[in-house]
Formats: sequence, C-alpha cells, structure tokens
Amino acid sequence: MSKRLEKIEIEERLAQMQGWTFVDGSITKSFIFKDFKDAFATMTRIAFECEKMNHHPDWENVYNTLNITLNTHDVGGVTEKDFKLAQFIETIIAS
Amino acid sequence: MSKRLEKIEIEERLAQMQGWTFVDGSITKSFIFKDFKDAFATMTRIAFECEKMNHHPDWENVYNTLNITLNTHDVGGVTEKDFKLAQFIETIIAS
Repeated sequence: MSKRLEKIEIEERLAQMQGWTFVDGSITKSFIFKDFKDAFATMTRIAFECEKMNHHPDWENVYNTLNITLNTHDVGGVTEKDFKLAQFIETIIAS
Repeated sequence: MSKRLEKIEIEERLAQMQGWTFVDGSITKSFIFKDFKDAFATMTRIAFECEKMNHHPDWENVYNTLNITLNTHDVGGVTEKDFKLAQFIETIIAS
C-alpha cells in the first residue's frame, strides 16, 4: 500500500507541476479542451492507464471541460500513486 | 431550439421513469456499475450518442459510480432533448 504523503511533501511536488492544487485531501486540476470529442477522447486514454494502474480518478466532464481530482481512498489522502497518475495525465494532454 | 419545459411537464415525464429526479433546473440520476471498466464503457457508448445529438451531459464518475445531470444550456432548463438523451441512456444501460 502506498504511504500517505504529508502536506509539505505534497506541496513540494505540486510546486513543480502546472495547475494542480491540493484541496480537501486531494490533488485537483481543471482542463479545457477544444470540444466534447477532444475532452472525451482524452478521458478514454486516461481511463486505460487508470485501469492498468488500478487507480481511478474522481472526474467530472461538462462539454469541453474536465475536472480531475485524485486521492488514494485506502489511505484517505494523497500518495505517490496520485502523482504518478497526474504525471501520466499531463503527458497524455501534452501529446 | 427546444422549448423549455414547465415544472409540471417535467414531473409528469419523470413519473414514468425510474430513478430520475428534477433538481436545480436539471434532471439527474446516479448509476452504479460492476467496476470502473463497466462504468467507462457505458460512458463511451453514451458519449457517441451525445455527440450525434450535439447534446452533452454534466457527468461525474468515481470508480463504478456515474452521476448524470442533464439540462439544455441554451434555454436554461430542461427540454425534450434532455428526455430524449435520458431515454437513450436507459436503453444503453438496460442492454
């Protein structure tokens, strides 16, 4: 099981990322895409990786917007798994 | 453009559907699936229909749960388009 990270550790990692914030025990970011197709296509690519990692987001989509919230339910906080998934999401979106 | 339905019309339609409620100017329902794969596969089928209808949900997925909220932004309320999409969603989920 992943270790729950301390607030200071989370903030250090977030300082090196763009647009992610630490809110209510989770890390979260909002993305805006060209349209619904673009948003959902990206979600699909992320979904496959989530399933592979067995680590799933809380995410909300409205047309071209996508809000992603990550935490590790088992430990009630943020772990390395969340940062690994966040990095993967950034890689997908940058590509 | 679809006509915004009155509250009484919305409630009449909802009375004939399972689990949908009228909340804050939208119709909404929560679904529970076997797992994330099942939830996301269903979302994908719905996404294609939404794109075809050019009518998109506000939806939130956490692992095996999916909350869907429908309204018609252009008219600031619920229209026939929302009921058409809701019916389609039910058909997909029943299949």
